[in-house]
Formats: sequence, structure tokens, C-alpha cells
Amino acid sequence: MTLVITQKKHANLMYKEAIKVAKKITFSTAKAAFGFDNEMNIGAIFYTSMQTVPAFLPSVLAKKNIPCLIPMGFDQDPHFRISRDVITKLGYYKPAALHCRFLPALSGPNKMSASEESTAVYTIDSPESVENKIRKYAFSGGQPTIKEHREKGGNPEIDISYQWLTFFEEDDKKLQNIYYDYKSGKLLTSEIKEILIEKINKFLKIHQKNREKAKKNLNKFIFKK
Amino acid sequence: MTLVITQKKHANLMYKEAIKVAKKITFSTAKAAFGFDNEMNIGAIFYTSMQTVPAFLPSVLAKKNIPCLIPMGFDQDPHFRISRDVITKLGYYKPAALHCRFLPALSGPNKMSASEESTAVYTIDSPESVENKIRKYAFSGGQPTIKEHREKGGNPEIDISYQWLTFFEEDDKKLQNIYYDYKSGKLLTSEIKEILIEKINKFLKIHQKNREKAKKNLNKFIFKK
Repeated sequence: MTLVITQKKHANLMYKEAIKVAKKITFSTAKAAFGFDNEMNIGAIFYTSMQTVPAFLPSVLAKKNIPCLIPMGFDQDPHFRISRDVITKLGYYKPAALHCRFLPALSGPNKMSASEESTAVYTIDSPESVENKIRKYAFSGGQPTIKEHREKGGNPEIDISYQWLTFFEEDDKKLQNIYYDYKSGKLLTSEIKEILIEKINKFLKIHQKNREKAKKNLNKFIFKK
Repeated sequence: MTLVITQKKHANLMYKEAIKVAKKITFSTAKAAFGFDNEMNIGAIFYTSMQTVPAFLPSVLAKKNIPCLIPMGFDQDPHFRISRDVITKLGYYKPAALHCRFLPALSGPNKMSASEESTAVYTIDSPESVENKIRKYAFSGGQPTIKEHREKGGNPEIDISYQWLTFFEEDDKKLQNIYYDYKSGKLLTSEIKEILIEKINKFLKIHQKNREKAKKNLNKFIFKK
């Protein structure tokens, strides 16, 4: 069964374990892993301790050693590199890791941020909002004019709408056609955007419906001590 | 009304506030205050953030600014020096501090430690246990032989039984007499120890009785959200 643990609601549970982790990690280690300097705040320095807890919390709760798989954005890797060294000292298994790609920010190649509207589509966005955001913010790999685009073609490697389609279009053949049609100039940025908008809205319609259903059951899945 | 908050039971409450504090403290600051080097563990580095929370937690709970007095062992002072700088940045009053002297360890001039029996009398110790501990462990400022002691006198500045009497003997006149009688050699270490044992056991008898009574009411005073 899936159990949901949140850092703030379950800090009681987590902090107690995090301090055991923290005792095994020196500033030198954190510094080497993250490139911290002395002006780094002590919350960020401590943070790896909290990040490590989910990797052995199931073992703590079950009072026996349970292997753990951590799916993470790849930027979280340094935390778990440290975790893997520390966890065995506490008597638990090293966690296995699943490194996930980022959906890039709408506005460019950086990480998407929930606090910057121009970088993200929210899972609760309306179809109109999705349309507006993709049209307005999605970074284009196309040429300045249609004429030029037909001549030189677009660059799918930097076109965010194409990049997003690699997540939303499950048919590899279709995706390949879009790639080459865009690269040859046959497909315009505005056209890729329309394909993406349709894909996202189809996905979100189902997601939002399931989300409403899940709300009623959420409480069953929140961990209770 | 007195409310009891413990770091482990109320970590939910405290950790949430501690991370706000932590963001305002750099490693440089902690390093300067405590003399940390890079091999210090990240739990100790973070700890000031948790220590700071009680100084403004009443304000958080009451949703208005409440002045706070922190009674502390004077070794905790560096934490609260940092706290005073940070707290105003979070919009709360600086805490006032009450610096308390340590009851020195039985075995010498260091800090008493609950985990080392030879350094401490516990509040739950029996009268016999108090007798044994004081006779066996209390560091003496006396001379090696009674003859020598009568001639040269003892040193109340390093005699732990005398030091403890400064906490337990409330009559300053009596205390002064003990001081000079010991210094002149009229009073032996073993005699000071007997005075101390009687004082401690009188104190603990009342304390232990009140403690039993308080147990029934303890739950009323544990903070509940």
C-alpha cells in the first residue's frame, strides 16, 4: 500500500531519524558534494539529513531491513550519494536510485519552477490556460520569419514544445516524423505548439478527473503513527 | 500557564520554524560562534536553529509578538547570541537571557553529566545513594592527612562539597562560617560532606514527593496543538 509522508506533517518522525544521519555527515562532505562555501546557510547544509530519511524510514517503521527504491530528479543525486555512504553506518541497506529527466521550463532549458508561472504548466490549469501559456511562453527553436523557417528549418533540440512532446507523444514513429518535419522547415513552431496543446489538454482532462476522485480517498493514504 | 514542549514530541511544530531560522544563519556565523571546523557534523551545525525556536514560539502560537525570557546554562549563550541577531529578521523580539551557573560535577570542576554516574546526583537518587556518591566521588579540597589539614587548612574554592553547599545552604552567614572553618582547617572534608548529604537529602525528600504528585498532572501541561 502507498503511504504518503510529508516533511512538515511528519517532521516528528523524520527529524528524530535525520539527527542520527546528521551525526555521520561532516561539513567537509556536504561541501565537497554540493560545492558549499562558508556563506551557505545552515538549513541547506543540514538538508541532506532530511532527504536521506525516506531511504530507510520503511525499515524503521517495520523494525526490519527493507530495500528501498528512490525515484528522484537527477539534481537530487548528490544527496543520495551521501546517503548511500551513511545509511550502512546506521545498519540499513543502501537505497537503489531511479534518476528522472526534468520536463524543461517552458521559457528555456532550465528547471521548471512551480513559483514561476512562465516556466510551468500546472496540473490544475484549465485548457484555455494551457493554450495561452504554450503559445505565449514555450521557447521556440524556429526561425524569425516563416520564409526563413521554410528555408533553414527549425531546431528541435532547443524547441521546448518539441522537447515536451517527447514526454507526451508515446508513438515514437509520430515523434520522429515531427522531429524531421520541424528540422526540414515543413512544420512551423506554431503548429508544433498546437499538437502539444492538444496532447497536454487530453492528458490533463483525465488527470484532473482522477484527481477529484482521489481527493476523497487521500486521507486513507496519509501515514498515521 | 506553563506548557511543556519537547524537541522530539513537538518536532513538527519546531522544525517548521527552525528552517526559517536556519536560512538566516551561515556556516561562517556558526563557525565563528562555536569554533567549528569543517569536520564538524552537520547536525551540530544546524542545532542553533532548533535552540532558537523557543525564543519566538510563544509569538508564533499566539500570533502576536510576545517578549520571551530564556533561562539557560551559560554554555548555551553562543546559541542565543546568534538567536538575537536572527530573530529580529523574522519580525520577533530579541529574547532576554538569564545565565545560570552550573552545579559542578562531583568529580571535579567540569560540567555535570547525566550519563556519568560519578559526576552527578540524580533527582531520583535514594538517601543511601546520595550518601555513597558524595562520600565516594565528591572532589576534596582538603589535605592528604588530618594532621596536615589542621595545619594548612582546606581549599573551599576547589572543594566540590563546599561548592555544592553554595547552592543548598541558603543562610549566607552559615555558609561563610563553613567557608572560614574549612579554610582554617577546623572543618574536615568528611564533615563538610556530612553537612551536604543532609542538605541534599532534605531537598530531595520534598522534591521526590512533589514529583510523584506532579506525575498525575503532567499530561495537562504537555503542549497540544
